[in-house]
Amino acid sequence: MSSFDRRTVLSGALAAGVGASAAAAETPIAPMIHHVFFWLKNPGSKPDRDALIAGLNTLRGIEVIQQLHIGVPASTEKRDVVDNSYDVSELMFFKSVADQKLYQDHPLHLKFVKDCSHLWAKVVVYDSIAL
Amino acid sequence: MSSFDRRTVLSGALAAGVGASAAAAETPIAPMIHHVFFWLKNPGSKPDRDALIAGLNTLRGIEVIQQLHIGVPASTEKRDVVDNSYDVSELMFFKSVADQKLYQDHPLHLKFVKDCSHLWAKVVVYDSIAL
Repeated sequence: MSSFDRRTVLSGALAAGVGASAAAAETPIAPMIHHVFFWLKNPGSKPDRDALIAGLNTLRGIEVIQQLHIGVPASTEKRDVVDNSYDVSELMFFKSVADQKLYQDHPLHLKFVKDCSHLWAKVVVYDSIAL
Repeated sequence: MSSFDRRTVLSGALAAGVGASAAAAETPIAPMIHHVFFWLKNPGSKPDRDALIAGLNTLRGIEVIQQLHIGVPASTEKRDVVDNSYDVSELMFFKSVADQKLYQDHPLHLKFVKDCSHLWAKVVVYDSIAL
């Protein structure tokens, strides 16, 4: 069974107050995961953080993005393995690697990079295929 | 509007072949994102990778996990910012930081760490709150 397990589908269906058929629950939604972490040039700057978040929100106009979650570090327990030194994160789900490429080349994404890349000092990207 | 935007809800509802009310579509589903990347001690070992993946699948029994996506590096374009050197990834959604703590302390998670930690050389965790 796909890792896009039935809870993924059911959570949406339940939020909408409906049931889901078993067949629908087996349907994978978005198997490619693209997670980007940004470290600002000025880490303490709320205006810079807000400008980056505003830029990321413009990406919502890109049709191939199935889900977009813009985040900031969570106040979870301090542990050696946890890296919460970044300033802003962007998590996207795509249906395929090909769709992720369409996103990379999309005018809205290129405009985002042009308008916002001066804000960050470092970017780390992780691309995964869900099993 | 939450980054758990209406597409998150609608995708589930549409997969179930139903519509969603505007009120339901505004409901945030899971605002805390926990993403873990594992580097194996034996990166070329398929048995070790499969054992780690099997271990991660046991975490599906933990109720506070809203979504669990187990992944491997995607064959996206090689770019300096992309780190696809890890072997296995685990992406979880929780309703809250408190639920994530319940997960950390859950017997199934503790058993997973006990049974599988000999497999990995390095772990990096990113915890985010979706805006």
